[in-house]
Parts: sequence; C-alpha cells; structure tokens
Amino acid sequence: MSAVSVGVRDGIVDRLRNRLGSGAVLSGAGIGERYSVDYTGENAQPPMAVVRPGSTTEVAAVLRTCSEFAQPVVVQGGLTGLAGGATPRKGEIALSLERLNGIEELDPVSMTITARAGTPLQAVQDAAIATNAGGNQGIRFGMARNLVLGLEAVLADGTVISSMNKMLKNNAGYDLKQLFVGTEGTLGVITRVVLRLAPRLSSRCTALCTAESFGDVVDLLQAVQTGLAGSISAYEVMWASYFDKVLEIVETLRSPFEDSHPFYVLVESEGVDQVTDNERLESVLAGALESETITDAVIARSENERQSFWAIRDGVGEITPALAPYVPLDVSMDIAAMPRFLESFDRALAAELPNSLNLVFGHLGDNNLHLFVTTGHEAENDTVLELAYGLVGECGGSISAEHGVGSLKRGFLHHSRTPKEIDLMGRLKQALDPRGILNPGRVIPS
Amino acid sequence: MSAVSVGVRDGIVDRLRNRLGSGAVLSGAGIGERYSVDYTGENAQPPMAVVRPGSTTEVAAVLRTCSEFAQPVVVQGGLTGLAGGATPRKGEIALSLERLNGIEELDPVSMTITARAGTPLQAVQDAAIATNAGGNQGIRFGMARNLVLGLEAVLADGTVISSMNKMLKNNAGYDLKQLFVGTEGTLGVITRVVLRLAPRLSSRCTALCTAESFGDVVDLLQAVQTGLAGSISAYEVMWASYFDKVLEIVETLRSPFEDSHPFYVLVESEGVDQVTDNERLESVLAGALESETITDAVIARSENERQSFWAIRDGVGEITPALAPYVPLDVSMDIAAMPRFLESFDRALAAELPNSLNLVFGHLGDNNLHLFVTTGHEAENDTVLELAYGLVGECGGSISAEHGVGSLKRGFLHHSRTPKEIDLMGRLKQALDPRGILNPGRVIPS
Repeated sequence: MSAVSVGVRDGIVDRLRNRLGSGAVLSGAGIGERYSVDYTGENAQPPMAVVRPGSTTEVAAVLRTCSEFAQPVVVQGGLTGLAGGATPRKGEIALSLERLNGIEELDPVSMTITARAGTPLQAVQDAAIATNAGGNQGIRFGMARNLVLGLEAVLADGTVISSMNKMLKNNAGYDLKQLFVGTEGTLGVITRVVLRLAPRLSSRCTALCTAESFGDVVDLLQAVQTGLAGSISAYEVMWASYFDKVLEIVETLRSPFEDSHPFYVLVESEGVDQVTDNERLESVLAGALESETITDAVIARSENERQSFWAIRDGVGEITPALAPYVPLDVSMDIAAMPRFLESFDRALAAELPNSLNLVFGHLGDNNLHLFVTTGHEAENDTVLELAYGLVGECGGSISAEHGVGSLKRGFLHHSRTPKEIDLMGRLKQALDPRGILNPGRVIPS
Repeated sequence: MSAVSVGVRDGIVDRLRNRLGSGAVLSGAGIGERYSVDYTGENAQPPMAVVRPGSTTEVAAVLRTCSEFAQPVVVQGGLTGLAGGATPRKGEIALSLERLNGIEELDPVSMTITARAGTPLQAVQDAAIATNAGGNQGIRFGMARNLVLGLEAVLADGTVISSMNKMLKNNAGYDLKQLFVGTEGTLGVITRVVLRLAPRLSSRCTALCTAESFGDVVDLLQAVQTGLAGSISAYEVMWASYFDKVLEIVETLRSPFEDSHPFYVLVESEGVDQVTDNERLESVLAGALESETITDAVIARSENERQSFWAIRDGVGEITPALAPYVPLDVSMDIAAMPRFLESFDRALAAELPNSLNLVFGHLGDNNLHLFVTTGHEAENDTVLELAYGLVGECGGSISAEHGVGSLKRGFLHHSRTPKEIDLMGRLKQALDPRGILNPGRVIPS
C-alpha cells in the first residue's frame, strides 16, 4: 500500500476536517512528535495527518472516507506498544483514539466495566478498584482476551459492529469479538469494550525462594499450583543472570539471601484470609524445603518487604538504560522446552556474539520468558533476533507471548506459524478489509 | 444448498469409498439410525451417506472431494447436541468423527491434554482425573473456549490448519482457533484439540440455602463471590416452580427444609483444605443469615447429603418425561434483567397459553437461565419460542447461553444479534467456505 498522490491527500484531509471539525484533524507542523513513534522509539516517522474522532460515529466516518480514498490508516491508542504496530509508515493517517476516553458504566451486579477504547488502563483499574473489584495476574485471570466480554468495533468500510455483551455465557452465533481482540487493529478499530471484573481479594502472601536447577523450579510450580489451588496470583522466575545484574546496577536493592543461586522464584498468592493463606503458603514452602526442591525461602512480613522483592523483579525498568543498546525478547514455549532453548541460545550467542549478555526472567506459569540481550553494537541486534526466533521456532514456541507482532516481528512470524495459518490470516484480512487500509504492513508477512 | 443429482451423488460416494475404503463409508440400508438425529430427536432424517474418516488426512480428503462436488456436509460428533446442528438435512453427507478418537498426550508439566476431536468428553475427563487434573465448573473455569489452548481444523477446501498451541500466552499473529470454537462446524471441522487442565482440588463444601426474593439471591451471590474468592465452583439457583415440581415427581427426593420458599440456592466451593474451607463457607452463610439475605441453610455433612442436594438440581433429567411435550430454553442475560424477563414471560404465557407451566433454574453466576415450558400441546411450542426469544431480545439477552444455535434457533438469531453482526458472520462464512458445503442451514439465518 503506497501513499496516495498529493492532490488526493489534500482532498482527504479537507474532507476529514469538514466532517469532524478542524480541531479534530492535525496536519503538517500541527502534528506533535508523540504521534510519530510507539514506546520502542524505533523508526519514528510523522503521519500524513492525525485524526482524533470523539465518537464511534466519527470513527466510522473517518474509515468510510479512508476506504473510499484507499487511504492507509495507522490506529493509535496510548502508544505504549513494543512491536512498532502504532508507529506510522510513510503516508499513513494516524487514527488516534485519545478522545474516545471515559468509563461508561460500572456494573457491580454483573461484575463488568464498560469503557471507551481510548481510556487509559490505569483509569479503568482505578474506577474498578474504587468500587471493590481489582486484581489481575495472568496466571490467575488469564490474558485480556479472557476478560473481554463484549466490544464494539468499526470495520474498514465504516460498518459499526456492536457486540457489547455482558454475559459470561453467550453462544448465540459467532463470537465476533474474537476477530478484534489480539489482531492489532488490522481487522477493525475497537471503540468500546465490556470487561469482566473479579472480586477484590483482601489478603496477599509473597515469598522469594531460591532453587538450584530448572527442574526444581518446575517442581515448585506444580507444588504451589496444587497446594495453593486457585489462590496463586504470581509465579515469577529470575535466572541468576538477571537477578545478579539488577542487584549490581540498582544500588538501593539488596538480596535477602547471603549466597548466590542459579534461580530465584517470586511466589504470590491472593485470598480472603491473611492468617490461613499465610499458613498455607508456609506449609507448601516448608514441604518444598524438606524435599530440597528449594534451598531457601523468605516470606514477606510487611508490605515494605514485599515491595523489596517485587523491586528486584521490576528492576528491569531501571537497568535497561545501562544495557542499551539491547534487544528485548518476549517469547513463550512449553515449559519443558525452556532449558533446551536457553542452552542453545546462550551457546549460539557465545559463538556468534561473544561479548553479548543475556538476562532472563519469566512468568513461568504462563509459559512466558523475557530476555534482554545486550551486544554493545546496535548493528548486531538483527543477528540476535535471527538466532532467538529461529531457536524459538525449533522449540515449537511463539515469537511473541504478549507484546504482539506489529511491524517489527512480522518478518519472523513464519518461525511460529505455518504457511497455511498465515495464508488464513490473509484470507480474513481480505474478507474484512479488502482495500487493505487498516494498519497495513503489520502482523501478516507480505 | 440443494442435493446434487443422483448421478453425481453416486459419483461422490464411490469416490469417497475408493479413497477411504468401503468400511469407512456407509450408504443406503447400511446407515444406522443414530446418524439421523441429534439428542433433540426432532426432524430425524437419514443422511445420503455417512463418512467415517480415521485421520486428519482423511477428513481433508473428504472435504476436498465434497468441495469439488459442492456437496453439503453435516459434521457429527457424539450427537449430544440440543440445537439440531448435527441432524442431517436432505441430501447431506454426514461426516462422523467417531473414529477420530483417542487421547494423544497428557502433559502434567504444561498442564495440558491433547485429544482427537471425536474423543468422548468422559474419556478426556477420566484420563485427566487419573493423573491428578480434574474439575470444571463454568463460574470458576469459564466456558470451553477458555480451556482450549490449541486446535487443528480442516477448512471446507481440505486445507489443514494446525494451531496446536500449548502455551497460555501466545500473541504471534491471529488466534485462529477462535474461528472454530463455538462456530458449530460452519467454518471448519475441528480434528484435534489441546485443552488446559487445572490442578485437582482436594476439598469440597456444599450448601443448600433458601431465599425469599431475587434481590436476596443476587446479594448472596456477591457475598459468596467476595467471601469465598476464587474457590466458588457452583452457584445454582432453583425457582420454587422447578424445586417443588422435582420433589413432587421424583418420589425418592426430600427437601431438607420444612417450608416452601421462593428460591433455593446450591452453593459449592472447592479448595485444598476441608477444615478451613468449611469454616469459610459457614462464616459467609452465617453472615447471610444474620443480614437476612437467606432464611435457611444446610451444609452437606457427607457425600451422600451432598449428592441429595445435587439430585434436586439434576432432577430435570428425571422429570422431563412427565413434562413432555415441553420446550427447553437455554438463555442468558444481565442478572439485573432476569426478574423483568421472567415476570413478562410468565405474564405472556398466562395470557396466551393459560395451561402452560414454566419451571426455571439457572447457573446464575454465569448469567444463564434454563426454562422448561410445558404446554400440553406440541403445536404450541412455536408460540413459546416466539414469546420467550422476543422477550430475551427486549432484555438484551442471548437466545442461547450454551447449547448453540444449530438449525432450530437460527430463525430467532436476530433477537440477540444485530443485522450487521449477522452480515459479518456471513462474510466470514463466505471467506472460509465459499461453496457453503459445511453445515449449511445452521447458525446463520438465510
């Protein structure tokens, strides 16, 4: 999809200004820098114009016009993406959802919240939490898809599909929202959502454990999943490479352990009774110590102590400046395949990029590993991606567990998906967006 | 889609026999009665032939051939459907998955089970339970969609789409399995699935409570959802109409209460510690008694007592013969809309079918109501459906919470879905099955 000619371009921007009002359309010098790139900072490029519709009807009008002109559109939300999906390509109009902002309803009986698509996640959480309904960890509540009960989306031709379902069970025809969740704006523009809420939990227990082998880390996961049943809310594994580097760089952090260990696991459970929940976690960890699945464990005895454990896990945000240039990887695979993948990858890095450093942590219960690979040379980043995604593919894993494909990973999609799957994605794209105006050049390989 | 001419028909059956072997293709008198109708028993009609492929490759060969002949196919699993979806229509070939049977893998580390699509659910549960991984209630674990991690499906043209993902998190491109889950075989034939397992729970607490108003039933739901947090596994509400009729017809059953009440609620929690779980349920119910949310409660003190509570809830299976002819309804809606719906429906029934009887129970936490309406005259069944689904639509509800649309409800789909939604379903159907051979006349209205 190439940019349209200058004459047509002026035509479409004028048409959009006439329709939405001049305040809703930015062009030329009026385009702020923030519409030029997502959180990655890579390949910054101002869009041809920015359109800021204030309603679903206006989104539909924008897309109808763009369809008519075969004008490519990049959809922008909070621009927090990590895959380049919302970074404009040359000649694209940016459709910003920032004015489609606000919570429409909080229903404590149905346990749902209805929000417009441009509402910051923090605002959704605040509203929900303020009325007794917060909490979300992947291992417990699943990914966003599982929490979306209904949505409204606008197709490329301007058709508004309203599936604002609030019911947990609804098998009346195709579940159309599944077309839009996780397709990164390539099949339609989501304008409103109904999210499922969970009851607020009143107790929380957090422990940091040490383990000497990956097998032990897996055994501990099974022990806490069985022993804590539905109350486990986090199982975060830090490899020594990551743990030690965070403590080295962030001077305010201290390890609660005297020695260094190959693995550290942050376990958290949430429930409704602090005393019995604590007893349960202690009992599971005591069993794990006895069976030598873990070698040490500290249970947080205060919120401060809890935060000091999480600060190590979240230290990635503080150490990345010191690691730059680095390649962040967000992959998933069978837990059983992880040791093979990491060994092969470290071996390949040692052979091809001997100065590289690979820091690893992961949401193990979700099959999700995050890797931060520093080479010292930006030019070598592509080599890292090639090595990593090739091995991910060999292990039957996914090149993106949660961040999505966007524009940066679509060239690697074949490592995780078959040609027939990619072809089927193309058939869907063709059926819903035959002129290819929605986020072209994202997700599906050319 | 009309039946093809006799000459062509003979051609296709011969072709399928040549390809699959004569044992895999039944025709004429060789077709057993069980291929003629699903669990409803309605509109029985033998298929033109029955094809029983033994592998995904054979399913693909069958569909490729049928596509070539534009031959309509009805997909049959266990024929336990309640919406007529698997009942053949004139001239269709039945594609039976009964030979696609067997568990391929049980992975206790990834907590997944991989099974072929024709495997009976009981066999899947037995295999999982035998290795410490059972348990599933909608309010806790969600619908089947949430438990399907991966699948393999064959498109109408014979293309095999293999998305046998085992990871909890995978955002590498479109989540294609969502196209096939819940679309009732109209977009592809599922041949294999990967299901997520949950750790087996070792404790269970069950109570039967009485309430005097629907508002109290809703308040109790909130109290148990908050007080039992993640451990609630069932919240089954029985209206007096249903409860009393079951006790009247099934002579072996006894109410644990002396008086009659407008509502009965069966609450069950599952956890890992019988003592503390019991204490927690007792404490929640004590609070509900004190606040007069409930008027009475009995906690099961033995497995026998527990089963006697469930026998009332499950008594529907025993009373239906006495109710025939009856109309079973499986609808969902906002909990807040339920009283309005039920009052309007009972008023409409009293006005139009004064001899009718409406028995109601529901999985309230899932927004799901089951209604059994007896009129005494089969000819009046359509009136019941018209009245019920019209009111469901007015309440913003779904004409099918879990049983699906099949052929019996597709004429009512417009009550729950907009014309634009139905049109989009048609676009998907056209994109994936352009010759319309897969389960034609199901789900999507003509």
